[in-house]
Amino acid sequence: MCESNAYVIRNGTEELVMESVGSLIPANGKITLKSIFGEIMYVEGDLIDIDLIGHKIRLKEHGGQ
Amino acid sequence: MCESNAYVIRNGTEELVMESVGSLIPANGKITLKSIFGEIMYVEGDLIDIDLIGHKIRLKEHGGQ
Repeated sequence: MCESNAYVIRNGTEELVMESVGSLIPANGKITLKSIFGEIMYVEGDLIDIDLIGHKIRLKEHGGQ
Repeated sequence: MCESNAYVIRNGTEELVMESVGSLIPANGKITLKSIFGEIMYVEGDLIDIDLIGHKIRLKEHGGQ
């Protein structure tokens, strides 16, 4: 399977916020994450990068470090 | 393998711009795509969405439709 884990960088550390992300949609300053299990999560922030081989999505919250 | 294909939406159609994308980095209004073969490409635009299960990255160019 090719889903990825999503992390938010908080205080310089990566905090896992969702496992098994199946899709990612940025819009209106928010990132919408949907897991392969149907969970939906919104992060008020920006995408830092996606490593498709390492299965890792990194996000930065607005106002965060 | 979990790499994806990247498409730019032009005139309402999806044009394949890079196969086997291994990572994606948005910064300064540009999207940097790196393939698993070491190719690097820049798209002046924004990410529309990523479908990790369907292995599809969709981008929109600035000023594009």
